[in-house]
Amino acid sequence: MKTVVVRNIKRTDAELVKRLGALGAATVHEAYGRIGLMKPYLRPVWAGGEAAGTAVTVLAHPGDNWMIHVAVEQCKPGDILVVGCSADNTDGMFGDLLATSLMARGVTGLIIDAGVRDAKSLREMRFPVWSKAISAKGTVKATLGAVNVPVVCAGVNVRPGDAVIADDDGVVVIGKKEASEVAAKGEKRRAEEEGKRQQLSSGVLGLDMYKMREALAKAGLVYVDEPESE
Amino acid sequence: MKTVVVRNIKRTDAELVKRLGALGAATVHEAYGRIGLMKPYLRPVWAGGEAAGTAVTVLAHPGDNWMIHVAVEQCKPGDILVVGCSADNTDGMFGDLLATSLMARGVTGLIIDAGVRDAKSLREMRFPVWSKAISAKGTVKATLGAVNVPVVCAGVNVRPGDAVIADDDGVVVIGKKEASEVAAKGEKRRAEEEGKRQQLSSGVLGLDMYKMREALAKAGLVYVDEPESE
Amino acid sequence: MKTVVVRNIKRTDAELVKRLGALGAATVHEAYGRIGLMKPYLRPVWAGGEAAGTAVTVLAHPGDNWMIHVAVEQCKPGDILVVGCSADNTDGMFGDLLATSLMARGVTGLIIDAGVRDAKSLREMRFPVWSKAISAKGTVKATLGAVNVPVVCAGVNVRPGDAVIADDDGVVVIGKKEASEVAAKGEKRRAEEEGKRQQLSSGVLGLDMYKMREALAKAGLVYVDEPESE
Amino acid sequence: MKTVVVRNIKRTDAELVKRLGALGAATVHEAYGRIGLMKPYLRPVWAGGEAAGTAVTVLAHPGDNWMIHVAVEQCKPGDILVVGCSADNTDGMFGDLLATSLMARGVTGLIIDAGVRDAKSLREMRFPVWSKAISAKGTVKATLGAVNVPVVCAGVNVRPGDAVIADDDGVVVIGKKEASEVAAKGEKRRAEEEGKRQQLSSGVLGLDMYKMREALAKAGLVYVDEPESE
Amino acid sequence: MKTVVVRNIKRTDAELVKRLGALGAATVHEAYGRIGLMKPYLRPVWAGGEAAGTAVTVLAHPGDNWMIHVAVEQCKPGDILVVGCSADNTDGMFGDLLATSLMARGVTGLIIDAGVRDAKSLREMRFPVWSKAISAKGTVKATLGAVNVPVVCAGVNVRPGDAVIADDDGVVVIGKKEASEVAAKGEKRRAEEEGKRQQLSSGVLGLDMYKMREALAKAGLVYVDEPESE
Amino acid sequence: MKTVVVRNIKRTDAELVKRLGALGAATVHEAYGRIGLMKPYLRPVWAGGEAAGTAVTVLAHPGDNWMIHVAVEQCKPGDILVVGCSADNTDGMFGDLLATSLMARGVTGLIIDAGVRDAKSLREMRFPVWSKAISAKGTVKATLGAVNVPVVCAGVNVRPGDAVIADDDGVVVIGKKEASEVAAKGEKRRAEEEGKRQQLSSGVLGLDMYKMREALAKAGLVYVDEPESE
Repeated sequence: MKTVVVRNIKRTDAELVKRLGALGAATVHEAYGRIGLMKPYLRPVWAGGEAAGTAVTVLAHPGDNWMIHVAVEQCKPGDILVVGCSADNTDGMFGDLLATSLMARGVTGLIIDAGVRDAKSLREMRFPVWSKAISAKGTVKATLGAVNVPVVCAGVNVRPGDAVIADDDGVVVIGKKEASEVAAKGEKRRAEEEGKRQQLSSGVLGLDMYKMREALAKAGLVYVDEPESE
Repeated sequence: MKTVVVRNIKRTDAELVKRLGALGAATVHEAYGRIGLMKPYLRPVWAGGEAAGTAVTVLAHPGDNWMIHVAVEQCKPGDILVVGCSADNTDGMFGDLLATSLMARGVTGLIIDAGVRDAKSLREMRFPVWSKAISAKGTVKATLGAVNVPVVCAGVNVRPGDAVIADDDGVVVIGKKEASEVAAKGEKRRAEEEGKRQQLSSGVLGLDMYKMREALAKAGLVYVDEPESE
Repeated sequence: MKTVVVRNIKRTDAELVKRLGALGAATVHEAYGRIGLMKPYLRPVWAGGEAAGTAVTVLAHPGDNWMIHVAVEQCKPGDILVVGCSADNTDGMFGDLLATSLMARGVTGLIIDAGVRDAKSLREMRFPVWSKAISAKGTVKATLGAVNVPVVCAGVNVRPGDAVIADDDGVVVIGKKEASEVAAKGEKRRAEEEGKRQQLSSGVLGLDMYKMREALAKAGLVYVDEPESE
Repeated sequence: MKTVVVRNIKRTDAELVKRLGALGAATVHEAYGRIGLMKPYLRPVWAGGEAAGTAVTVLAHPGDNWMIHVAVEQCKPGDILVVGCSADNTDGMFGDLLATSLMARGVTGLIIDAGVRDAKSLREMRFPVWSKAISAKGTVKATLGAVNVPVVCAGVNVRPGDAVIADDDGVVVIGKKEASEVAAKGEKRRAEEEGKRQQLSSGVLGLDMYKMREALAKAGLVYVDEPESE
Repeated sequence: MKTVVVRNIKRTDAELVKRLGALGAATVHEAYGRIGLMKPYLRPVWAGGEAAGTAVTVLAHPGDNWMIHVAVEQCKPGDILVVGCSADNTDGMFGDLLATSLMARGVTGLIIDAGVRDAKSLREMRFPVWSKAISAKGTVKATLGAVNVPVVCAGVNVRPGDAVIADDDGVVVIGKKEASEVAAKGEKRRAEEEGKRQQLSSGVLGLDMYKMREALAKAGLVYVDEPESE
Repeated sequence: MKTVVVRNIKRTDAELVKRLGALGAATVHEAYGRIGLMKPYLRPVWAGGEAAGTAVTVLAHPGDNWMIHVAVEQCKPGDILVVGCSADNTDGMFGDLLATSLMARGVTGLIIDAGVRDAKSLREMRFPVWSKAISAKGTVKATLGAVNVPVVCAGVNVRPGDAVIADDDGVVVIGKKEASEVAAKGEKRRAEEEGKRQQLSSGVLGLDMYKMREALAKAGLVYVDEPESE
């Protein structure tokens, strides 16, 4: 285990993160070529929360939140804390005191591949959290992990400084170098969607709007009427 | 795979569907002899939504929503779209554009044995959806499935035109031929429940109201007092 | 199977239960030395509900809620009903009629290691329920279980009369004899937390407030700067 | 609930079932257009068992094996018993006594969407079983279900008399009317596989044997060398 | 947390344990009135292993096997080690060195609600283990738990000295005071089973042997022939 | 999605891989500081298989094994194929034909975060496979992924050329640069274990051999005798 804290990480440009956040997780995920999405077992602690930020990463051990306390010091305004765990765990590794501390530093949210507690307070504080579980189970402070090394969180490898976009649809991670291209593609996609929505809303069929009929016929789709008696 | 679209299906009578919808999933399920209920891993995307309709069925493949686009054209006002999947999958196969399209056609809801995305928009649009997961993961349009063939969705075999009743308690499917009898039984049950609720509310015990004491004694139930020291 | 109903159980002192309830599940769990917490798969049927009470316990069989009906009679104001199941089950063993009956007797909530139904009504009635699932699946009344014997519910052994504290963070069970000590410890902890929250809110780091730096260094934690090129 | 036993069902032709069984589950599943496969949580109780037969179906309730006893009488040599359950359940609904009874009637195996017990005896008796769980949990005989009605088992709708093919790869169900075509297609596929195996074994690449290179290039696949420094 | 080691526990009589072990888990579970069975997610590390013994109990924390080392000293010949965990965990808390130590003390097996490692060695040593997972993940020795206090393991409350019977069908726990009665009942059941097996093997139907036909008819079971055209 | 195939990757030294393989997954995992272990849901298709090799990585999509065919060409003797999937999937993406092809190229095993089929043949061919599921479900060849880019497989980020060690205890991944140090540490650990095993086998307690008694007392562990009456 690399028991290390890496300081002064390079972060994705704040303006880019803002643009990505405005697009939302689903659009960003599509614009990124359908990669970078954390597994859907990660759910928002309260519905409707949205967060975008640059990743400060934590590698923690099951039932031990020592490194989260260490990580707080490395956070800057606009960061989002991303916590991976060395084994599956649902303990409540994060609660309202840590949230208070992160909010005081301008952190925009928490992504954790484990449990959290004080769910009601987090909702009232409007601090957005995506976690694997809600559990009152407290944790010890006994084993070192690492801060700002690459960590796997809910199936995605997150590097310090990556852009993280989270909302009700899930959590997407975008590499620093790719953020600019993804933002541009996502904005193009978003712009086109509005027109599509209006067409569909007026009754135009997706089959026609997307011109799918020919490809479907070519693939062998057949239309039949239901026979008289079942 | 039967790559077919069946048109002009027979539907359960609209008035019957309305009566069943007014009863709710739990009452309908009881009136149907406790069958027809989808597995409880299917959950509403937003709490409080209710839907009743006639099933237009889709058999889709994991990560591929092509056939949902095809199915939209087969939908009429009062239908409910039911999507089964040929293997377990949580990808977001349905989002706000498809919901816009379904609403434009008068469809009352979506039941899908896979994931959906745009959860926030679906909630804001008040389009009721029951799904296995929420996931930003997009899908391809590559493999044919079928529309309006019998599909297994969350453990229930659904035939085109069946009545589907869904609310916070889950999703129940009733065969076309049995809808009338189920509605009648359910309404009788509902009527009796009100009286029971008033009795229970006034402090009458279910043990007495349901006359359970004799059967319990016969089955061997014994009452004892707690001994003095544990 | 001990097919028995134990009457006149000793209950944890009501005043103690009230004090424990005011602390909430997470604080009580910590004060209890991090034991007594039910598994986090048990979730509130509606967010924000809180309950504290003395346990009336039920041992039921999958798909059979007969013993819940039997247990209602043994409940007094301030009790909380705790239902364990002899095998994994998600059927809806409890609904609004039983809730009506429990409310009429002054029961403060339900904890059930199985499913419930009438979720919407339970939310509207403001009757707090923690369950493993929501399911319209009805149950039979065929096999005897027991009331007020020790039961394992979601991983915790619950004895009749134990104090049960439940909120959005989960469900904690405290033994009758230990309730007083736990309440005192929890109140001390709670009192200290307010001061910590204010410090953290003003920007003081947990690293400093908890004086962690020395222990971290001793354990071998190293700080480095990110190298120039990744 | 249709509490009925259907007698004298039509069965898939025994010779066809034998041919399908010789192909194995994976080949049959492909030949059937990739449908009809039960969910992979259904596992053989002992590795290496294989079974092919015509379905006698049972709809049972959780923790209740009454209808399995009823179904035995409806079985003929060459049948395979398929048990669906009205709700998720892992109880041991089947053990060595029932297996003895089925073997006495020439039944070739058991497929059950619940648990079984006497695992060691079943292995020693060489009676092949595919189940969701192994559990010593016994069951009651209290509630009627049905025999030889269509049942959903592990995600597949099984009709009485359907052909069922099971081995280490899983369980596939083929409709009576389609068995002949599936057998023919599967045999063709099997015949071609041997040649492929020899080619691949001699070092020919699938890329060349299946002529994939052009399609891959067209889809945009790019080959690059690893850069010098990572 | 009661950080205590209880010495000199009372154990179930060794002769009774031997008789219970000869019956096997399924028969013992039935004779005990269908209670005392651990959840079926606990599986033998190698098939065919059998163990019977008196429980030495351990309460451990996730990822920490310190208390298992402590417990070894409390074990006597004929004991079986039962490890509960304060939160869900799959780490490999036990391996071949601890097994060597237990075998040197005459311990008959291990039941653990967590993971184990060195699976191959355990199989070769013929040391029987029932666990929730197999995982190479090592553990720390940092937090105290308890030895020989009641622990919940896989859903069952186990008290020190209880009889534990484990085989391929699962793990059953019998209270000290009830062991004698359970053994007698189980032996009666076992004796009757042999005759039943011979009858069933000769083709007698369970319907007749158990005299079920009348009860089934009374419950409303109807027999019909399959109609001509489906 | 980076639809790219990276050729001529740097591989961990073959001699180092051999030394790591001789140690086994559990020892290597410990020597690596308890990181690099894939999640324990990944299980060997047949017990007793062991594999060590250098990773050729594949990023595939659910239900699509096109990129596995592409990856075969990039494999050299001593490689091990590691397949990550962009979303959870249990389809049988790999069978005996692909295994034949890999064996012809000297590949030592397959690690796949999805399903495989032809389980019986894989066992008979003695080709070791670690997978998430066994499923007859076949796959399409429709969407590009990537070969020899970093992929997350069962919770671990695997880079091309990394050392992969797999046995009944699970799968461990070691970075190229760290393999030498891990091998040395592991061999030291292994050497010490033999002496420990002999001591434990002769009855020496781990409490004494590891000198734990003082630390336990310091942490507050108390020994008491069981009171007379329970």
